[in-house]
Amino acid sequence: MDNPQVIGIDFGGTSVKLAVVEGSELLTDIHRIPTQEFVGPDPLIKVIVDHVVEIRSDYPGIQAIGIGVPGAVDFSKGVTYNLTNVQGWDDVPLRDLIAEKTGLPTILDNDANCMAYAEYKFGAGQGCRNVICVTLGTGVGGGLILNGDLYRGSTYAAGEIGQMSIDLNGVEGPYGNSGALERYIGNRQIEELAAATYTERGEELPADHTPEGIAILARSGDLTAKAIWKQVAEYLGACLMSTVYLLNPDAIVVGGGVAHAGDVLFDPLKKNLQASLTGECFHHLRIVPARFGNTAGIIGSSALASELV
Amino acid sequence: MDNPQVIGIDFGGTSVKLAVVEGSELLTDIHRIPTQEFVGPDPLIKVIVDHVVEIRSDYPGIQAIGIGVPGAVDFSKGVTYNLTNVQGWDDVPLRDLIAEKTGLPTILDNDANCMAYAEYKFGAGQGCRNVICVTLGTGVGGGLILNGDLYRGSTYAAGEIGQMSIDLNGVEGPYGNSGALERYIGNRQIEELAAATYTERGEELPADHTPEGIAILARSGDLTAKAIWKQVAEYLGACLMSTVYLLNPDAIVVGGGVAHAGDVLFDPLKKNLQASLTGECFHHLRIVPARFGNTAGIIGSSALASELV
Repeated sequence: MDNPQVIGIDFGGTSVKLAVVEGSELLTDIHRIPTQEFVGPDPLIKVIVDHVVEIRSDYPGIQAIGIGVPGAVDFSKGVTYNLTNVQGWDDVPLRDLIAEKTGLPTILDNDANCMAYAEYKFGAGQGCRNVICVTLGTGVGGGLILNGDLYRGSTYAAGEIGQMSIDLNGVEGPYGNSGALERYIGNRQIEELAAATYTERGEELPADHTPEGIAILARSGDLTAKAIWKQVAEYLGACLMSTVYLLNPDAIVVGGGVAHAGDVLFDPLKKNLQASLTGECFHHLRIVPARFGNTAGIIGSSALASELV
Repeated sequence: MDNPQVIGIDFGGTSVKLAVVEGSELLTDIHRIPTQEFVGPDPLIKVIVDHVVEIRSDYPGIQAIGIGVPGAVDFSKGVTYNLTNVQGWDDVPLRDLIAEKTGLPTILDNDANCMAYAEYKFGAGQGCRNVICVTLGTGVGGGLILNGDLYRGSTYAAGEIGQMSIDLNGVEGPYGNSGALERYIGNRQIEELAAATYTERGEELPADHTPEGIAILARSGDLTAKAIWKQVAEYLGACLMSTVYLLNPDAIVVGGGVAHAGDVLFDPLKKNLQASLTGECFHHLRIVPARFGNTAGIIGSSALASELV
């Protein structure tokens, strides 16, 4: 079956991005609407709808709209609870507002679910039935494909890999959840780990000790930078091991900025998982970087929208 | 729809148990076949089939057979990999052997899945869509109901809650999995914890410091026994917290011997989960003891068999 033409909308921290998508292919440039200047949902929604109208004059065959938003959503009602970094967005029935104003069937989900669905349909998880997707960035997010479909959980809150514990007596998480993974391998935590590791070793801290900076150093052979990634892989591996024992997936897809570290992250990660999983859980398991980067939200929300057609 | 009459067969550590089941009701006494005297599968299978033939002369309306076995199975092939405590059972196509010899449609699954399905269909998880079942005993097992169906995973190995880690630097598990939950709250580990706790406090170790013994003491007000269960609840709670963040279920059903501890386990367990979960994950969550005890395997395998009819 051919993929329909749909519009994917990705609500990011600082801008809303839109594009026309067919399968995994973007047919247009990405339209960007900066969100800072808008207070409350109505003016921003109006501008989004204006963009949709404009796009449809060029693409009259568009059949649906998919929207990905950061944070929790009520999937059944199509409501965003709150949008980080966008003022005045509490309990907005975004799905129905967009559907009414455009006349197009619309679907709304959180961005980690969109990312997971994009990877499952067209990316690194293609052909798998059960896929764990984890996104590494400021925080750690996740999305689950189980039995060939997005698994959302009873209150649409499933996939919170970043809140899982790797140490019952560990660093306090945001909800009283000791040992929360994202308190170990969020971007800021990796920077802190880098600072601590270089200092411990009596070495000079590189000016750029962001995850990207440390990844470049590690790939160029810097032993301390490699050790930092090995430690990150140990934290991430502990959590993914538990996830695999629970869900026995075909694939783990790792996305987000930190995933660009490449082999310096993936080599020790695979080694840790092989050393701590049974053969029946490990042998068939694919542990791979995400295919889509910044476009995952647009492609994933579009893929969900295509299911409406 | 009425439930069909089926035979449930539960392979235990020391005996095979059979009964005729309709829904959650056992229509017969439990037939017990001790396994120790049998070497290899053929003689034991012959005796099981003899029992089935005998039962069917009284219950001619029996329509299917369900079998629960300890340990891993290949669900699609109906093969048991190995049976703990039964000699010579490696890679036995048990499902098809029983089906051929009885002429009845037969289904085979592992006992933790059977237990989970029994609780979902007729027990403490009834009416829920997503249920985490955990069984506490010598080891710690688990079964998952997701989107209203048993979730088995890509190689039928899902639900291994006992192998999940609660501490990345913790006690070594059986597969190199540091911090494996079952190495903290298996029956033997609870006994060891009891011995250590009474000794630390300079108190005399009770003669019966099995989980059952400690539970009786805790309910009678023994502060040390209560502290032991509080510690068990902390270990179990850490793992279940991670499981809830990942799967956002409606219910957690706790079964197995240790679950009989009752409030001395469940009260601190609920408190720990409330203190470490978001409201959206906790508020609707049922945390309950299993309804079925020793009959869970027979009722669950029967419930699976009923789906064949």
